[in-house]
Amino acid sequence: MTEKLKGQLKFLIEADKMKSVFRQTILADKSRAENDAEHSWHFALMALTLFEYAGIDGVDINRVIKMALLHDMVEIYAGDTFAYDTAGYETKEKRESDAADRLFPLLPDEQAADYRALWEEFDLMETPDAVYANAIDRLQPFLNNFLTDGHTWVKHGVSAGMVYKRMEPVRRVMPQIWEFVEYVIRDSREKGFIRTEDT
Amino acid sequence: MTEKLKGQLKFLIEADKMKSVFRQTILADKSRAENDAEHSWHFALMALTLFEYAGIDGVDINRVIKMALLHDMVEIYAGDTFAYDTAGYETKEKRESDAADRLFPLLPDEQAADYRALWEEFDLMETPDAVYANAIDRLQPFLNNFLTDGHTWVKHGVSAGMVYKRMEPVRRVMPQIWEFVEYVIRDSREKGFIRTEDT
Repeated sequence: MTEKLKGQLKFLIEADKMKSVFRQTILADKSRAENDAEHSWHFALMALTLFEYAGIDGVDINRVIKMALLHDMVEIYAGDTFAYDTAGYETKEKRESDAADRLFPLLPDEQAADYRALWEEFDLMETPDAVYANAIDRLQPFLNNFLTDGHTWVKHGVSAGMVYKRMEPVRRVMPQIWEFVEYVIRDSREKGFIRTEDT
Repeated sequence: MTEKLKGQLKFLIEADKMKSVFRQTILADKSRAENDAEHSWHFALMALTLFEYAGIDGVDINRVIKMALLHDMVEIYAGDTFAYDTAGYETKEKRESDAADRLFPLLPDEQAADYRALWEEFDLMETPDAVYANAIDRLQPFLNNFLTDGHTWVKHGVSAGMVYKRMEPVRRVMPQIWEFVEYVIRDSREKGFIRTEDT
C-alpha cells in the first residue's frame, strides 16, 4: 500500500470522529443532540433538494455539496462552536485553523489543498457557492429548532435579533425560503421560544 | 408557501429519521451503533476522497455522491437490512419498494422521479456510477469492522467466503483498494474475527 493511500485511509478513519462531535441542535424527535456527521449529511441533502430556490447566479450545486461534506471536519479537533456563543467565536478562527493544519495534511498535497480551499471558501462566505452553502448550513438547525419547540433558542435565551442576524444568508439568496423563516420566527416569538427583546 | 415547497420541507423533515435508523456497524471508538445519516455522510466523503482509485471508465463522482446521500433513505420506513441477513434479504426488495412509494412522492413529481431513479440505479448496480457507489458503500462498514476487531463479523459469525462475496464490487473496480481488503480479510482470519470455514 502506498504512503499516499495510507494517508487517505487515515483521514477517512479520523473522519469517524465527526459522529461524536455533538451540537446544540437536537433531533426532531427530541431524543438527543445531533452530531456533525448527521448535520453534514442533512445539510448536503437540503442543499440538493432546495437548490431551485437559490436566488443567486453561478451556484454550482456539486461544489456546495462537497462544502457540506467538509465544512465541519475541523471540529474533530476544534470542537463545535455554538452559533450564539460570543466568547467561543473569539477563539474559533485560531482553533479551527490549527485543526485544519492537523487534519488536511493527512491527505496527499493536492487533495489537502483542494479540501482546505473549499472549507476556507465556505467560511469566508464571499462566493455564490459559499453564500448558498451558508444559507443551508443555517437553515438545517433552524428547521430542527422549529420542530423542537425552539430547543436551542429557549435553552440559550436567544433573541429575535440574533436569529435574524444568523439567518441573513437565507434572506440574501433564498427569498422564497425567507418567507418560511420569517413565519417561523414570528410564530416562535408568539410562543415565547424566541425572546422578542434584544436585551 | 407553495404546496410544492411544503412537500419538500416535509421530505427534509422525514429525513431527520435517518439519524435513528441504526446499523450493525459500530463507530471506530466502539461506543455505539452507527446510524444511516452518519453512514451516508461517511460514504459520500469516502467516494470523494478515494475517487482516483476508481478503476472503471465513465464514473461521475457528483452522481455517486448524490447516490450516497439518497441510497438508504427508504430505510426510514423499511429499516436497515443487515448485509449478511439472508431472511431479511428475501423481503428487502418489497419492503424498500413500498417505502419508496411512501417517501419520494412527498417531493414534486420531477424531483421524486430523479431521486427514485438514482436510488434504483444504485440498487441495480449495473452502471459505472452504481458499481463504484456500491464498492464504497461496502468499503465504509468494512473499514469500521477492521477498526473494531471485526465487530459485526464476530457477532454474526461471518465467514471469509461471505466477506469476499460482499466485497466483490471493490475487487471489480478498485484494484488498489482490493489489496487493502485482502490484507484485512487475511489478518482478520488469523485473529479469528472472520471464520475461515464456510460451514
